[in-house]
Amino acid sequence: MSWSSWILLAYLGVLTGGPNKALAEGSGSTERNCSAAPPYLPPTAVNTKQRLAALRDVMKAQNISAYIIPGTDAHLSEYIAPRDARVAFMSGFTGSAGTAVVTATKATLWTDSRYWVQAERQMDCNWELEKDVSIRSITDWLIQEVPEEKQIGFDPYVFSVKTFSAYNANLSPAPRMLKSLPDNLVDKVWANRPAEPSDNLVRLPDNIIERTWLQKVEYIRSIMRENPYKPTAVLLSALDETAWLFNLRGNDIPYNPFFYSYTLLTLDEIWLFVHTARVPDDLRTYLNATCYVADCVQLMEYGQELNQLTNYLTRPSTRVWVGTEYTNQALYELIVPEDKLMTTDYSPVLTTKAVKDATEQRVLREAHVRDAVAVMQLLVWLEKNVPTGKETEMTAADYVNECRSKQKFSKGPSFETISASGPNAALAHYSPSSDTARVLTVDEMYLVDSGGQYLDGTTDITRTVHWGTPTDFQREAYTRVLMGNIEISRNIFPDGTRGINMEMLGRRALWEVGLNYGHGTGHGVGNYFGVHEWPVGFQSNNIPFREGMFTSIEPGYYKENDFGIRIEDVAMLAPVKTAYGNNFLTFDIVSLVPYDRKLIDTSILSPQQLDWLNHYYQTVRDKMGPELKSQGLEEVYDWMVKNTEPFTTTQNSATVACSFSLLLTLLPTALLHHLL
Amino acid sequence: MSWSSWILLAYLGVLTGGPNKALAEGSGSTERNCSAAPPYLPPTAVNTKQRLAALRDVMKAQNISAYIIPGTDAHLSEYIAPRDARVAFMSGFTGSAGTAVVTATKATLWTDSRYWVQAERQMDCNWELEKDVSIRSITDWLIQEVPEEKQIGFDPYVFSVKTFSAYNANLSPAPRMLKSLPDNLVDKVWANRPAEPSDNLVRLPDNIIERTWLQKVEYIRSIMRENPYKPTAVLLSALDETAWLFNLRGNDIPYNPFFYSYTLLTLDEIWLFVHTARVPDDLRTYLNATCYVADCVQLMEYGQELNQLTNYLTRPSTRVWVGTEYTNQALYELIVPEDKLMTTDYSPVLTTKAVKDATEQRVLREAHVRDAVAVMQLLVWLEKNVPTGKETEMTAADYVNECRSKQKFSKGPSFETISASGPNAALAHYSPSSDTARVLTVDEMYLVDSGGQYLDGTTDITRTVHWGTPTDFQREAYTRVLMGNIEISRNIFPDGTRGINMEMLGRRALWEVGLNYGHGTGHGVGNYFGVHEWPVGFQSNNIPFREGMFTSIEPGYYKENDFGIRIEDVAMLAPVKTAYGNNFLTFDIVSLVPYDRKLIDTSILSPQQLDWLNHYYQTVRDKMGPELKSQGLEEVYDWMVKNTEPFTTTQNSATVACSFSLLLTLLPTALLHHLL
Repeated sequence: MSWSSWILLAYLGVLTGGPNKALAEGSGSTERNCSAAPPYLPPTAVNTKQRLAALRDVMKAQNISAYIIPGTDAHLSEYIAPRDARVAFMSGFTGSAGTAVVTATKATLWTDSRYWVQAERQMDCNWELEKDVSIRSITDWLIQEVPEEKQIGFDPYVFSVKTFSAYNANLSPAPRMLKSLPDNLVDKVWANRPAEPSDNLVRLPDNIIERTWLQKVEYIRSIMRENPYKPTAVLLSALDETAWLFNLRGNDIPYNPFFYSYTLLTLDEIWLFVHTARVPDDLRTYLNATCYVADCVQLMEYGQELNQLTNYLTRPSTRVWVGTEYTNQALYELIVPEDKLMTTDYSPVLTTKAVKDATEQRVLREAHVRDAVAVMQLLVWLEKNVPTGKETEMTAADYVNECRSKQKFSKGPSFETISASGPNAALAHYSPSSDTARVLTVDEMYLVDSGGQYLDGTTDITRTVHWGTPTDFQREAYTRVLMGNIEISRNIFPDGTRGINMEMLGRRALWEVGLNYGHGTGHGVGNYFGVHEWPVGFQSNNIPFREGMFTSIEPGYYKENDFGIRIEDVAMLAPVKTAYGNNFLTFDIVSLVPYDRKLIDTSILSPQQLDWLNHYYQTVRDKMGPELKSQGLEEVYDWMVKNTEPFTTTQNSATVACSFSLLLTLLPTALLHHLL
Repeated sequence: MSWSSWILLAYLGVLTGGPNKALAEGSGSTERNCSAAPPYLPPTAVNTKQRLAALRDVMKAQNISAYIIPGTDAHLSEYIAPRDARVAFMSGFTGSAGTAVVTATKATLWTDSRYWVQAERQMDCNWELEKDVSIRSITDWLIQEVPEEKQIGFDPYVFSVKTFSAYNANLSPAPRMLKSLPDNLVDKVWANRPAEPSDNLVRLPDNIIERTWLQKVEYIRSIMRENPYKPTAVLLSALDETAWLFNLRGNDIPYNPFFYSYTLLTLDEIWLFVHTARVPDDLRTYLNATCYVADCVQLMEYGQELNQLTNYLTRPSTRVWVGTEYTNQALYELIVPEDKLMTTDYSPVLTTKAVKDATEQRVLREAHVRDAVAVMQLLVWLEKNVPTGKETEMTAADYVNECRSKQKFSKGPSFETISASGPNAALAHYSPSSDTARVLTVDEMYLVDSGGQYLDGTTDITRTVHWGTPTDFQREAYTRVLMGNIEISRNIFPDGTRGINMEMLGRRALWEVGLNYGHGTGHGVGNYFGVHEWPVGFQSNNIPFREGMFTSIEPGYYKENDFGIRIEDVAMLAPVKTAYGNNFLTFDIVSLVPYDRKLIDTSILSPQQLDWLNHYYQTVRDKMGPELKSQGLEEVYDWMVKNTEPFTTTQNSATVACSFSLLLTLLPTALLHHLL
């Protein structure tokens, strides 16, 4: 996982990370103190006085009493390009999740517990911090701050239909009026806004693809034809929708191989909106870009999608299918009257893409084998070098990135590596920087959450280790987190069950002793896409599990100012044979790195959990052994074998509970046979 | 449970019950065969030709192409009075869940798998049966049958805001137009529609009440005052809302102590809409019905709610709070413009009522103790009398009803007793009638799902038993159902967790071997209310669990044409002490009847499950022993003690898996100490 905006808010309280040891020494030094006189600001705080004044000027010109600034872009992306980082520009806060609201006198940022410390370090005293990030909390605040009948401005490009609708449902009865302002006000006052990216688009090689773009287009059209509402077009707004449909990739968003784009796919035409100068001749040929019939892609300049959609809607008997989770309000509000519109939560492209074809499954598994080599190399290297006292969170992150870069098809990390020792790991989202990086020692637990982009697949894996002697509580907490991974992984359930309805299995062993974690339990991953490939996963708005989907499984536990544990694997939804029924699924883990044996207390595992663990270790040996040998990595091979020794039960508490009666039954027999 | 409209549709396939053995003998004799020439109709089928013709005449006069007839009443009740059974009148089908749609040429009933056989027995060949009961299925059918731009009529009184909105969202873009017709068309052609009920309302005795109606009113007003939207009134439409608020009960709906009513509660007035002739003088005094200030109840005639709401809305600065799940569209559509309206899924009365106060908790537990006496009496009586071959499903149902009637505060059954042997129990909803009742034998499994109304509480419990020798599969299936009960019951989870997010624990042991069940896993129960007291339970639209709520827990398994298993207990959400955390809950079972030992295969239970079971049995002894003694029921007492003997493990599979290492460890020691 990479800790963007998908935290589960129900458990917020668990996650309140504090500053790390080094920083806590000089009290007040790293976080602002706005109640001091004069207010204290750390050197990391950004002076926002002038930019706020500038924004308030343009707000006044628009006659609005407040302006809402969400943290996303026009494609509702989870990761955004620097030019879309409007919350960061306005507030100084650079965390990946946050919403800012500015009024004539106040400026407030809403962000979740992962980022509270960071916000206090980066914001100056012009900003207030709100910690309940529900839309209800923001609209309650707006109702309090904005007088009745006054207007609240927003940029409809950076609100999904769903999000706008939630704001509107809360504000409109208040009544506080939302005013759509398609020219973003932050952009008006952002003098040095980063330029648009310029890299060319590229196509995926044929050997990792099963379905050509024309086959995909034809399939989506067949779904459209079968729909009783008879949509004549599908509008694709999310960046991975267009990238998937045409088997194309780009380089516009850090860590994400996407390019700015929209697609309007009708039953007999295809319009692709991109920066056309970045489409080289060979891609134009590949896309049949010089004709105008059903299997030709008509390239139009990015920015023309609004005009083209408007034109299209003037045709008779058109109906445009949009997914409300990933279509922005600016495009959506064009589609009138209602009989021109058809909505579902997700477009048919996203639901089709969610299920991997046989080739995608195979190459995604292969990418995870190579990725596991890199992660094991890191763990071997750390085991040797941490005791020297020279390695830090930063050097560890660099090392794993370097190991990945040497693997076949590597395209860099899939998100900023989370390399966190001791209390830093209690901040579940933490990534090291030169001023926060801790030296790694045998006295602290260490968490590394990292992933790679490969031409054939995206990976994401977390391991937590201890190189010295963990406390009893650390072992218990780690084992209970692992029990969560195992209980989800070994679950058998009917095809079509939702992740949200089983994710408590990831928490149950923690709940049993009053522990919990404050984030989600998993997200989809795919073939050289964003590391969070929605709508697959364990969230409430995710679609039901089907064979061939891939998801991460990642319970955790975080003890404030002390340590953090997370164990994350990627698994495929695979069919399973049961005694009596058909159409049942389970998880087939494709991440192949052993867990830290030192942290596993087998006495609290059930026999079934122990069996699962031993079976997984055998799989790691079977799949990683040949790969490590073929890469000539003997030392890593030996480490892998040593760390996948099967566990045997010893004094298991379940055993104690269940054995005495058996003992009493068998003992006389044993005595009889062997001694008398 | 009483098997009304709350089935989980995701698992429909599991439940397809067939006809019972006796009935299957004469082929085609109990179900219609519309493809025969001439069509075959069983004697149970109702001739609907004339009433359909009459309805089509009035439809034509209204210029509508289709008319939708839901199975509920103006209060969105789950149980309805005979005068509201419009689906039954039109189609002949008397099941508790179904929606009928009539066009000029077709008549179609949608009902779920519990009722397919019954529908084929009761409907004539003017009716078609549709088996996917989602609103989407109905609207897809309407889009197919009704031409574009044509109108589809509906009675806004029998659609909740939520349901209407779902229909409208599907039909409006089609476009097919919904036409609101507040005069119900079925009523126009229903010559002998049953009269309105006439029983007086009654108040609950003070000794089972903690909060007076004035305290409740004041509490609801405090919630209104604290709400940021500043509602000035709450509209209460569900019958249990008004009954709860005023501590009143009635007798208008079979099995449900409700009376037709609405309440409009403002910050300074209270209007209660009832049949005022049925409010005796003492109740008028009790309700302060002769004054007009904040703590006086102004009685208005039932039927005046629409006028009064309209009048109220003409006052300046009013805003009416409605719960969209239980308010009908007829009242809702009056509340315009939007700033007069405030909506939540449930009114503050329903969410407040969901958490029982200390007195309600105590008396509801007491009712369950008395109720368990009656159920045990039944089980003892059956164990003795079934082998005689004289008892039937009917005599068993009569017997348990009679036993309940002798208990203190008894007010009759809380729903029609489900007493089902062998294949009849595979029809999860089945209630016996004289023409279907099977003779009970030692060769069949028997399921009894029954409940009582008591002045202090409502009960609902299911036990499944076998008086002969169950098959291995029956024992396995029963044990896995029981494992579901236990896994939910012993779950520990944070306060505020939703039932839907843990209900899979009720299915998991079944899923493991490819089995499942096709209904929900539990529903709220309360103090002398409907047996399904929403919005508490394990459904997706239920509210989060809080301490003091009560819910049933009731997994099952149904093998078509063979047998049915369900185990149902009621539990209170109770706080639990954990090793490290606070604010965790678990379930405290208040139903106190032992499970059938013969059907429990302890070898597949985990040690924790066995512990739970033994602990529950000890609780049954502790709580039921004194009660049975005090009622002088020695035989039942002895039966209870015999059936709550603690289980000891024998050759438990977990034990086998986990014991050998312990055995090997301990054996030499044992030998050493005891023998050498």
